[in-house]
Amino acid sequence: MIPSIEQFHQAVNRVASQVHRTPVLTSRLLDEMVGAQLFFKCENFQKMGAFKMRGAVNAILSLSDNERSKGVVTHSSGNFGQAVALAAQNLGVKAYIVMPENAPAVKKEAVRSYGGIITECPSTLQDREQTAAQIKAATGATFLHPSNQIEVILGNSTAAYELLSDHPDLNSIWVPVGGGGLLAGTAIAGHYIHSDCAVIAGEPEQVDDAYRSLKSGEIEYNLSTNTIADGLRTSLGDVNFPIIQQLVSEIILVTEEEILQAMRLIWERLKIIIEPSCAVPFAALLKEKNGFKGQQVGIILSGGNVDLSNLPF
Amino acid sequence: MIPSIEQFHQAVNRVASQVHRTPVLTSRLLDEMVGAQLFFKCENFQKMGAFKMRGAVNAILSLSDNERSKGVVTHSSGNFGQAVALAAQNLGVKAYIVMPENAPAVKKEAVRSYGGIITECPSTLQDREQTAAQIKAATGATFLHPSNQIEVILGNSTAAYELLSDHPDLNSIWVPVGGGGLLAGTAIAGHYIHSDCAVIAGEPEQVDDAYRSLKSGEIEYNLSTNTIADGLRTSLGDVNFPIIQQLVSEIILVTEEEILQAMRLIWERLKIIIEPSCAVPFAALLKEKNGFKGQQVGIILSGGNVDLSNLPF
Repeated sequence: MIPSIEQFHQAVNRVASQVHRTPVLTSRLLDEMVGAQLFFKCENFQKMGAFKMRGAVNAILSLSDNERSKGVVTHSSGNFGQAVALAAQNLGVKAYIVMPENAPAVKKEAVRSYGGIITECPSTLQDREQTAAQIKAATGATFLHPSNQIEVILGNSTAAYELLSDHPDLNSIWVPVGGGGLLAGTAIAGHYIHSDCAVIAGEPEQVDDAYRSLKSGEIEYNLSTNTIADGLRTSLGDVNFPIIQQLVSEIILVTEEEILQAMRLIWERLKIIIEPSCAVPFAALLKEKNGFKGQQVGIILSGGNVDLSNLPF
Repeated sequence: MIPSIEQFHQAVNRVASQVHRTPVLTSRLLDEMVGAQLFFKCENFQKMGAFKMRGAVNAILSLSDNERSKGVVTHSSGNFGQAVALAAQNLGVKAYIVMPENAPAVKKEAVRSYGGIITECPSTLQDREQTAAQIKAATGATFLHPSNQIEVILGNSTAAYELLSDHPDLNSIWVPVGGGGLLAGTAIAGHYIHSDCAVIAGEPEQVDDAYRSLKSGEIEYNLSTNTIADGLRTSLGDVNFPIIQQLVSEIILVTEEEILQAMRLIWERLKIIIEPSCAVPFAALLKEKNGFKGQQVGIILSGGNVDLSNLPF
């Protein structure tokens, strides 16, 4: 179930020239607040503003020449659609992006500015999947899944690879969990680089499917999508769940209030813009800080795409 | 009038261990928008969130042991008060900060958290100066001016020193102008490191005293303080004005709308938090971009202390 160390290193080598090696920020004040040494890996500074670029690049670079010539297709109202559009543009590949009709104009504009070919459809998952399948049938394009595809997961793992290369003594790495693609990727990197480093996820209480899935041993689904962390409303998949089951130490639930407080602290203290989903692992660490005193803690800041006209402050 | 190259290098060596060497960010999209290669020097990531830390550190390190034992005093409702408090705390010196009674609670709290001893007074300049003078008389503390004191100006110059060390081929460096301390300091660094590099300031139309001062050859004063760029409402002083006259190429005025637009672009594209004053030089560059096509342009992002509860978006 876990990809091989060769596949992992292939991904690391493949994406390096196509993504930013993002900086790692520190803050004396946040260190004092937690009682640990914190290292924030800034994927909000990644191309198109989120780690999703890594998975999209690796997935496209894994295609054969014949597959590439036919393009790629995905359905997404969020960062993955933008990531596929930009990665494909940079690699000279066509990208068909299925977006719900009611997606914000600013998100459609971003996909378009990266050269993505948009097809709109009703906003149900069924309509989106069906529209993507039609495009695949008509064009021969390869379908890319935002979180449940091994090459996407391996691409995501390169953020933790860079963080662990810069800071090899981390005791733990914290990420958000939504669809599970970043969590599984981070766990693979930890496993192959430094297996003593715990991989821990934060998840909103309101969308606690991953937490319940780990407990029950089966993929569970969300009963609500009522969270400000809009990137984390999706569920795990059959490719990433077994990896998460084997390699992830713990999932910690946080309230909406805790997410907002963590987001605000990062904005105010690190002076950087992160999206609400991105604040979730730091919220989890703040909640459980007593278990991590004196340790070195890595936190992957997953993305920074927010609508400034609609801020929660 | 212009301090010697020895004084300049003394300041560079003095502050290095007490301030962050802040990162320089770039953005392909903003480069395309201007048609030049832009290098953003991120003093919003400086200790306490602004370049003011550099001047405060250099001024305190320039004191004799006897002077240091008696402490320092300044009056400020903004970043300089915080900078003096933190620099003094780090160097084991007492800091008396005079603040207007109506200063925001969050600013008083910041000064207090850095160990500053606050004295409140009515908000007129006269009251603030008088209160500071009383403290000076009672304690023997040395008065530090936020912008019109040579050691503060030399401390400020170290931001441009670092930027020019990292990017020696810059054709110009852009900064905001308020009290003139950052502009004069940047001009000194340009003069001694790379005198072909133009130093250009942006200034809000609403507080165009520096622009008019350069035209008339005398220090002019603001007729309004009606700008969102609240760090730029002050006027030049007799120490920094002669330096600016000799070494600064140009001051470019921008509207409030242009400031907001530039601020928003930096938040959205660089994913970093800057205060409105900090957006002014980028607004000026956007306005005058046709004169700088194909060039290498440095922009000093002066600070990132904003009140998230009161954003202009």
